[in-house]
Amino acid sequence: MIMKTMYTLSALARTIALGALLTLGVPAQAQTDPLPSWNDGAAKQAIVAFVKDTITPGSPKFVPPADRIATFDQDGTLWVEHPMYSQVMYILESVPALVKAKPELAKVAPFSTVLEILKGDRAAIAKLTMPDLEKLAAATLTGMPVDTFEAQAKKWLAEAKDPRWKKPYTELTYLPMQEVLKYLRANGYKTYIVTGGGQDFVRVYSEATYGIPPEQVVGTAGGTKYGYGKDGKPFLTKEPKLLLNDNNAGKPEGIHLMIGRRPYAAFGNSTGDREMLEYTKAGDGARLSMLVLHDDAKREYAYGPAQGLPDTKVGTFTQSLYDEAKKQGWVVISIKDDWKRIFAFEP
Amino acid sequence: MIMKTMYTLSALARTIALGALLTLGVPAQAQTDPLPSWNDGAAKQAIVAFVKDTITPGSPKFVPPADRIATFDQDGTLWVEHPMYSQVMYILESVPALVKAKPELAKVAPFSTVLEILKGDRAAIAKLTMPDLEKLAAATLTGMPVDTFEAQAKKWLAEAKDPRWKKPYTELTYLPMQEVLKYLRANGYKTYIVTGGGQDFVRVYSEATYGIPPEQVVGTAGGTKYGYGKDGKPFLTKEPKLLLNDNNAGKPEGIHLMIGRRPYAAFGNSTGDREMLEYTKAGDGARLSMLVLHDDAKREYAYGPAQGLPDTKVGTFTQSLYDEAKKQGWVVISIKDDWKRIFAFEP
Repeated sequence: MIMKTMYTLSALARTIALGALLTLGVPAQAQTDPLPSWNDGAAKQAIVAFVKDTITPGSPKFVPPADRIATFDQDGTLWVEHPMYSQVMYILESVPALVKAKPELAKVAPFSTVLEILKGDRAAIAKLTMPDLEKLAAATLTGMPVDTFEAQAKKWLAEAKDPRWKKPYTELTYLPMQEVLKYLRANGYKTYIVTGGGQDFVRVYSEATYGIPPEQVVGTAGGTKYGYGKDGKPFLTKEPKLLLNDNNAGKPEGIHLMIGRRPYAAFGNSTGDREMLEYTKAGDGARLSMLVLHDDAKREYAYGPAQGLPDTKVGTFTQSLYDEAKKQGWVVISIKDDWKRIFAFEP
Repeated sequence: MIMKTMYTLSALARTIALGALLTLGVPAQAQTDPLPSWNDGAAKQAIVAFVKDTITPGSPKFVPPADRIATFDQDGTLWVEHPMYSQVMYILESVPALVKAKPELAKVAPFSTVLEILKGDRAAIAKLTMPDLEKLAAATLTGMPVDTFEAQAKKWLAEAKDPRWKKPYTELTYLPMQEVLKYLRANGYKTYIVTGGGQDFVRVYSEATYGIPPEQVVGTAGGTKYGYGKDGKPFLTKEPKLLLNDNNAGKPEGIHLMIGRRPYAAFGNSTGDREMLEYTKAGDGARLSMLVLHDDAKREYAYGPAQGLPDTKVGTFTQSLYDEAKKQGWVVISIKDDWKRIFAFEP
């Protein structure tokens, strides 16, 4: 009861202060920039205009609070995806424990290849084919109770470090995008992650890292199987059965499955986000579709191949995607020009 | 701006009134019964005790607000399911329009059988087999854009009436359960529907009928397919491909897929809810699992076959489920004894 009372008294104090401001005719928060890590420019202006238009009662573009849905791709949009997706690093770095439990795997590809990579031959990552990765994913992400997987992923996230910045992966989120998440939420938007990454994996850290609860993470998802332990207690086991491939057309399909309504704003950075941005922009009224372009080799990475940037298989942003963005009125965010600061840990 | 200011001033007035009450030492809302349609008894007491235990800071059973998830079956738990599930009525009553568009279906079973049923031979419903119903469901629920389906379902819901009460189906919700939904939400719980019914169907009316937004409806779900219209605009088509059969073990599996965490409270009324209630109750700390028993032939319906009630194929509540409930500490709600009023339209 003490906490509740304190909460109420503090809410009272805040409300009275706000009331006083209104009485004096001073617009509340007029001086506060919601996006301080952004340089002034078309991208920042587009976000601010979208929010103002959609939350102002009487505006022709007003969106009722219940309909305010915004979706964000994760890898390359909310956090760093180069040189390799964090979840792929998790899969690779989970192999030694797997081999310890089943020593016969040490001499079998692709497990043997992964052991070489982890011994220092990082270039050998390129040897892994898509079927290899699928086999590794099935072995490290499925076949265990959901609680066991969650504990393993949590442990890895607490210990693993990105090779360039020597920081936990969860610190490599983009500060400007964190500001957009908070700005949208402060204006009544429900923020969702819609990722090609594993839904169960991202849910482990989404709340602490982005303030996004597990139920607002849509990702590539496998089935689970309900069963009972020896003690009679029920539990769910992760199955190697794909329910939703949350990439490309799978993104709007996943949004329909998990959210059931069309977003008003969507953010991505690669061809895997194309259909989500198309679907968002095709709705009535004000819709915001934005793409992050990685064009800052010095402060982060530079890849496309759009606009003559180096080509990549990780987070490909083609010229055709760039052209569609320009044609459809999507806004391209240049990391180099639009972001004053990239990470919270930077000075 | 005027609306915003008025909102703030009204919030201010309410907060000050609450502050005054606290200053006077009068507990706010002490006199208000959150469950006025419930008779005093074990069921009502279990709900009130659960809420008090889980929201009181310092209580060993305290549940942090972010974890407060409660799930509700729909048919037979939140609204009437006899003599037949509303969605089955939707499927049957959609057949004439289907036959109008494709006249060759008029002489083909099961479409011809449905036409007989609708002409007055209601008993012929019993002739429909499960494969018949699946064929009818595929024909009436899939193959069209999601927006078209939504418009059709909305139209039907506005016009269709339950044969006994001559009221729209959406008015046949149980007032005591509506009170539980509101009571839980007022105490920080996120309320979800977890139904064997069609996810897209229930989402059409969940917000208006229960205050539950589409993204908090988990149901039996089919795939959709992303494509482009002649005008180049993208849209999703409902496909006859089952992604989630949200019954029995499918309920906890669906909860993991769509919500990603275990509920603290779950409500059901039939064997299809067994696994959801087991899964809920198996969690740590305070967990509430409840079952509605339809034992009031006069005011609603009576069916089991638990406790010697008449047997049924629609919302079966077996003696084995009843015995498991008693053994596991789930609470059985007797409509006859626990509910003072059943419907809001009753005097």
